[in-house]
Amino acid sequence: MQFARPLADLIAQLERLPGVGPKSAQRLAFHILRTPEDDVRRLAEALRHARESLRLCTECQNVSETATCPICADPTRHRREICVVGEPRDIASIERLNEFKGVYHVLHGLLNPLDGVGPDQIKVRELLVRLEGQVDEVILATNPTIEGDTTALYLAKLIKPVGVKVTRLAHGMPVGGELDYADNATLLSALEYRREM
Amino acid sequence: MQFARPLADLIAQLERLPGVGPKSAQRLAFHILRTPEDDVRRLAEALRHARESLRLCTECQNVSETATCPICADPTRHRREICVVGEPRDIASIERLNEFKGVYHVLHGLLNPLDGVGPDQIKVRELLVRLEGQVDEVILATNPTIEGDTTALYLAKLIKPVGVKVTRLAHGMPVGGELDYADNATLLSALEYRREM
Repeated sequence: MQFARPLADLIAQLERLPGVGPKSAQRLAFHILRTPEDDVRRLAEALRHARESLRLCTECQNVSETATCPICADPTRHRREICVVGEPRDIASIERLNEFKGVYHVLHGLLNPLDGVGPDQIKVRELLVRLEGQVDEVILATNPTIEGDTTALYLAKLIKPVGVKVTRLAHGMPVGGELDYADNATLLSALEYRREM
Repeated sequence: MQFARPLADLIAQLERLPGVGPKSAQRLAFHILRTPEDDVRRLAEALRHARESLRLCTECQNVSETATCPICADPTRHRREICVVGEPRDIASIERLNEFKGVYHVLHGLLNPLDGVGPDQIKVRELLVRLEGQVDEVILATNPTIEGDTTALYLAKLIKPVGVKVTRLAHGMPVGGELDYADNATLLSALEYRREM
């Protein structure tokens, strides 16, 4: 015997989360046992509700409660500029600037052939479909990492023949860094000096 | 607008966990969105079930599904030796050795006056009640940290006048370390060379 079964079950479930090893799973589990029951119920409900109620926006593929996300549904955003990002959380980084008034496209991943992530594993086809409409510019805002640069190059090659202007966030950001961690000033200059590809 | 509401809710709930900051809460939340619905339901259920079904053993105060925990209910364990530990997880460390055949007492904390943890905040009174029965030895197996040593000293002073032998795990363990992280050999020698206080 080690732990009571419900406790062992909880530890096993927590260990499956990214970045949570056996020791931190134990610590989290014991924390849960000391947490008021109502709070634990709220956490359990938030997990289930988030997973069950959220889907991908049919236009930009961002995580959304509705078929069309609030940004795509906003009539004041112009649809001729599409900012392409790797993950939904990257949208929050750009929205924070209050500068970009176009719409987004979330790839849900970056090209990484070694890990078996090719164009079919991310939302590339969905982006091409959108370019059939009236689009003036595609801003490639993937991370300035190897995967992000590879993805940007790949998309630029694919999109330019369609006749749409393709730009990339300026390398004002520290190379190898992640969009998600950039400060506003750096991101802002990167957006301002975006260069055509 | 930043995140869809169910997602923002989930991030807020995850941020309340110990060691989970805003960034890791976001990462965990997006991981949840990519996890199969059944797995998320299982995690939510494990959280709720662990919190709702577990209580403290009426004898040793360990976390248990039943009024008396499996160790206290085991007729082959002798009740004349009580091993006192700070947290339920410390029991697993000692049980792993397959050496100790007595029973446990979980304090659920260690004395820490600066944090306002005095004898009334941990399960000291419950330990004294148990000493009214037939007890030959109390082994103080609290962590060899300032809080653990303080707690051991305090308990030794309290218990010795009752006429019960009080021992402390030998300092075979690295000072300042935690029981929870000790390897078996170290813990075993610490148990073997326990000294009377």
